[in-house]
Amino acid sequence: MSVSTQVAANAIRMLAVEAIQKAKSGHPGAPMGMADIATVLWQQFLQHNPANPNWANRDRFVLSNGHASMLQYALLHLSGYDLPIEELKQFRQLHSKTPGHPEYGYTAGVETTTGPLGAGIANAVGMAIAEKTLAGQFNRDDFDIVDHFTYCFLGDGCLMEGISHEACSLAGTLKLGKLIAFWDDNGISIDGHVEGWFTDNTPMRFESYGWHVIKGVDGHDEAALQAAIKEAQSVTDKPTLICCKTVIGFGSPNKSGSHDCHGAPLGDDEIAEVRKQLNWSHGPFEVPEDIYAKWDAKEKGNSAEQQWEAKFAEYAVAYPQLAAEFERRVIKQQMPADLNEKADTYIHQCQADMKDMATRKASQNAIGFFAGQLPEIIGGSADLAGSNLTLWPEAKGIQDDAAGNYVFYGVREFGMSAIMNGIALHGGFVPFGATFLMFMEYARNAVRMASLMKAKSIFVYTHDSIGQGEDGPTHQPIEQLANLRLTPNLTTWRPCDAVEAAEAWRQALVKEAGPSALVFTRQGTRTMARSESQLADIAKGGYVLKDCAGTPQLVLIGTGSEVALAVDAAAKLADNGVAVRVVSMPSTEQFDAQDAAYKQSLLPAGVPKLAIEAAHTDFWYKYVGIDGDVVGMQTFGESAPGGVLLEHFGFTVENVVAKATALLN
Amino acid sequence: MSVSTQVAANAIRMLAVEAIQKAKSGHPGAPMGMADIATVLWQQFLQHNPANPNWANRDRFVLSNGHASMLQYALLHLSGYDLPIEELKQFRQLHSKTPGHPEYGYTAGVETTTGPLGAGIANAVGMAIAEKTLAGQFNRDDFDIVDHFTYCFLGDGCLMEGISHEACSLAGTLKLGKLIAFWDDNGISIDGHVEGWFTDNTPMRFESYGWHVIKGVDGHDEAALQAAIKEAQSVTDKPTLICCKTVIGFGSPNKSGSHDCHGAPLGDDEIAEVRKQLNWSHGPFEVPEDIYAKWDAKEKGNSAEQQWEAKFAEYAVAYPQLAAEFERRVIKQQMPADLNEKADTYIHQCQADMKDMATRKASQNAIGFFAGQLPEIIGGSADLAGSNLTLWPEAKGIQDDAAGNYVFYGVREFGMSAIMNGIALHGGFVPFGATFLMFMEYARNAVRMASLMKAKSIFVYTHDSIGQGEDGPTHQPIEQLANLRLTPNLTTWRPCDAVEAAEAWRQALVKEAGPSALVFTRQGTRTMARSESQLADIAKGGYVLKDCAGTPQLVLIGTGSEVALAVDAAAKLADNGVAVRVVSMPSTEQFDAQDAAYKQSLLPAGVPKLAIEAAHTDFWYKYVGIDGDVVGMQTFGESAPGGVLLEHFGFTVENVVAKATALLN
Repeated sequence: MSVSTQVAANAIRMLAVEAIQKAKSGHPGAPMGMADIATVLWQQFLQHNPANPNWANRDRFVLSNGHASMLQYALLHLSGYDLPIEELKQFRQLHSKTPGHPEYGYTAGVETTTGPLGAGIANAVGMAIAEKTLAGQFNRDDFDIVDHFTYCFLGDGCLMEGISHEACSLAGTLKLGKLIAFWDDNGISIDGHVEGWFTDNTPMRFESYGWHVIKGVDGHDEAALQAAIKEAQSVTDKPTLICCKTVIGFGSPNKSGSHDCHGAPLGDDEIAEVRKQLNWSHGPFEVPEDIYAKWDAKEKGNSAEQQWEAKFAEYAVAYPQLAAEFERRVIKQQMPADLNEKADTYIHQCQADMKDMATRKASQNAIGFFAGQLPEIIGGSADLAGSNLTLWPEAKGIQDDAAGNYVFYGVREFGMSAIMNGIALHGGFVPFGATFLMFMEYARNAVRMASLMKAKSIFVYTHDSIGQGEDGPTHQPIEQLANLRLTPNLTTWRPCDAVEAAEAWRQALVKEAGPSALVFTRQGTRTMARSESQLADIAKGGYVLKDCAGTPQLVLIGTGSEVALAVDAAAKLADNGVAVRVVSMPSTEQFDAQDAAYKQSLLPAGVPKLAIEAAHTDFWYKYVGIDGDVVGMQTFGESAPGGVLLEHFGFTVENVVAKATALLN
Repeated sequence: MSVSTQVAANAIRMLAVEAIQKAKSGHPGAPMGMADIATVLWQQFLQHNPANPNWANRDRFVLSNGHASMLQYALLHLSGYDLPIEELKQFRQLHSKTPGHPEYGYTAGVETTTGPLGAGIANAVGMAIAEKTLAGQFNRDDFDIVDHFTYCFLGDGCLMEGISHEACSLAGTLKLGKLIAFWDDNGISIDGHVEGWFTDNTPMRFESYGWHVIKGVDGHDEAALQAAIKEAQSVTDKPTLICCKTVIGFGSPNKSGSHDCHGAPLGDDEIAEVRKQLNWSHGPFEVPEDIYAKWDAKEKGNSAEQQWEAKFAEYAVAYPQLAAEFERRVIKQQMPADLNEKADTYIHQCQADMKDMATRKASQNAIGFFAGQLPEIIGGSADLAGSNLTLWPEAKGIQDDAAGNYVFYGVREFGMSAIMNGIALHGGFVPFGATFLMFMEYARNAVRMASLMKAKSIFVYTHDSIGQGEDGPTHQPIEQLANLRLTPNLTTWRPCDAVEAAEAWRQALVKEAGPSALVFTRQGTRTMARSESQLADIAKGGYVLKDCAGTPQLVLIGTGSEVALAVDAAAKLADNGVAVRVVSMPSTEQFDAQDAAYKQSLLPAGVPKLAIEAAHTDFWYKYVGIDGDVVGMQTFGESAPGGVLLEHFGFTVENVVAKATALLN
């Protein structure tokens, strides 16, 4: 008996409703509504190898409406990925491979973590940028080593979110012809029928972005879906949106077409009705062999990958250096072996030069150096290249040069950051993207998602304090540094000078997994002298920059632009006969990761501590304790020249000395 | 001599370039490019009274491209607001009324703080919602007491930002016919000509939102601008976008049309050239009397306000109760005199009831109570009404009922929050809006802007910890509470039960100025018994919930769902012979604002302290010190039932007792 696409799709529906019922939690509506689309796409179009989820040239699939996670788990299970039926029975249980939303790193075949709406489509845009640019850099003549589609499912929620505007607008501008998105147009969101709050003409909207739009496709009609996907694949100079009319909860006689089936289990009675309606006679979590056979993509996937391997072998003969570089960057995802050695030389040179400069300028220099070593660096800024200082001499915008290494993201901080995550997850690139530290907030959840996924995105943030000056409190970070530092898996660096800035860049690049935030000043900084061991200790996140003889009476802790102030205040205190140690702490997370003895040696118990940072005071009690003190900010800033503001808010030698003296008495 | 509109506009241009040159900082391009549009709008259409910037029925003007602040300052100065020329000479200097970006509360006539791009248009959407809804609630027959336009200037940057999508999409759905936006289509952003990163067909995009779009208006042609504004005013069932082709830096012979004039002073030489080109013979900051006379809007404005006052007087005769309510809500912006008394009764009743429930449910009850007292409450949720529990029996969606009190915001957290700020700034309403605490991040900068402006927006956040359960780490807040608490001017409440939840709502509503964040559980909580004085002390943000005899050996501090755990652990420790105090701390900011003696009486120096909160540990060292300890989170969460997760991450009596015992030894 041959299994129809309809029956194959019903297997998804039944697995979804049963797993959600068993978990007593989850979202059956979207998996049931999109099952037919998913079946046609996965069975008839998707190029993938379940036995090797890391095959470099696989098509990417992103479920932007991540609450439909059971759709993806059912697809992975049925196609032959390492996701046995037992895992589906453990949906949403601790340590299962089937968490509530698809989590990158938990489940083979999940390309990115989704759930926060709209972020998935931005990740997909990033993957499509990576594919196109990698193809530009590596493909030669008849060797299309990099040649895959990026498919994305999205719902009304994704489309309402602002990030979908940012990402899809840029995708149109960049003519990402191999990005194909499917809109699950079911007319329902959590609050009910969307007419009261969502009346966009979405096809027109996407046409305004320069997308190819295929309207009015019946999302339950195999032939219509086949035709739409073929048409989408044939349009190579525009991304495509396929607008699929679907019925949410398709197959549920009493709950389909209603928000009742969006976010809650159907209930045993209704599942019995579904079973009847879908003519599904098998028990819970039972899929007959012929249906499994129809789904099994292992053989076809293996054959596709082997064909690619054969092509790559020929390519390696024709272009051995390119192939080796492809292996390093894309397949093994390794840094060059000599990177650390060359970085050491560069950092030593920065130290020897002793040049004073804004750390954003030092960052630009470091970018120039590291980009010369690492062609996988793909930079960018949210329309602040000249302020963030993110361009380097060899930077080439991908909008003009298919093999470029720089993205002009436009004024799209959230889109940029989620796109960077998609680029990083695709492989072959280490993306960095910049904005003012304040506008990290616009992109905040993408920074968190990079952290959660341990994606190696490097977030560059300049204009890092009230020191930025005249733009005023809307542009002056206060609480943002603490927000970054309290984000698990993220490493934040706020270097004090050109040397720490170079080391921060190195650390972000050699970090095994996970993102970094590099935080730089607008204004000039003074480069500090360092011994060899001090230079080596920067990497520990905190180190003694200036010490006193014997046990200190006071430890001053500074970061970034306030380190020079700490050094000057320490000199003044020393004149007053106080034994003061100055600790520079460019990365509190990196410092926290050191052993207790090292930490204790820097910040001995019982010695009063005063932290100095032009950011919110309260973060620092972790280091200075209730009995310590902090020269910092507890209010918003003001608009005035940076030097005036720093003085106004107490970042002066006099104030530090006064606070220190009070602590000692 | 009669002064032409062109010459009047040149006064703006010259004031802008001179002020920016004197400050050596600022953005001349947009004020020069938009000067003609601004002149036509302000001189010929805008209904306002410079002598009373608070006139309730004034048109609202929002400069969404806030970096063009000198445009607004020039307009306010020339029109006769309390902004003397000396203030323009102090542009971007400390304590001037002319900060780098327009700041609400600093400058008479500035309706909202702008600078973070896209937020201004969302504020304007909020103001237009407020106008329309207030009109629905107060206008009667021929008394159009509320009847004004909201005008908004915006640039390419605003249009690229995702928030513009969220806000403008909703504005179209809600048919905000009195919202008129002007797009400064100059083809330039900071990185240069926008073709490489911004190719939207913006008119088509806004048509897709259901806006009326007027294309191809020459932004330097008075007649074209007049016709466009008249057309926009005549379309009453759709917001209008007027697409104005302008030349950035118009009047600068060598820098106009280029990003060179976007964000830096023109320089003295170029200003001399501007003077020639504009045929402006007057010195820096000199405006001839005839040009001032042409600009002066005081007499016209006063007359307009007086006409409105006369109408309002008649209205007050016809509808005395409505008029009194309008005076209270809109003109005096006061709470009802008996609010506190009634709230006391309600909160006492909650205490007496001793009903256990999720605090989100308690919040819903409180909303129902307070909305009955305060018709100015306008609620909403970003498509999570059934999860956030934000609907109450009398809630009516404004999409169906012009006099409604609830906004179905759709999946638009950032748009919602910035729209709420616009509603609050308009006057007449106290807006609340809800989402999951995690998705505060999508809206983060709007929360900050409410705090900076001291706008009385109430942000309701449910599903406040790993206790939310199965949705997993993408939906489980860890670092978000600390982020809220470190935001100046914001008051965050995380109540432990129905009683604290009711008090939190009261405190948010009676707060003199500024926003609050109310953070609620998904899961059930246990209602605590309290004495009268304990009940009164909730308002202090922290209080002794359970005490021991004599001096405590240990203080346990808990918030929200962890307070019951603290109480249970304290009982266990008491069984073990340890004298333990339990402090409930629903609002750390409110607690911090108490006097030192009160704080010391709760948390005595020298007594070990252990904080318990299912959020990031590091916030709490401020209270427990380096020698204290915290039962909290340092990693992301997991997907599993909430109870399983709380146990998995150590929120158990056993673990608290173990940590407490370790602290004591």
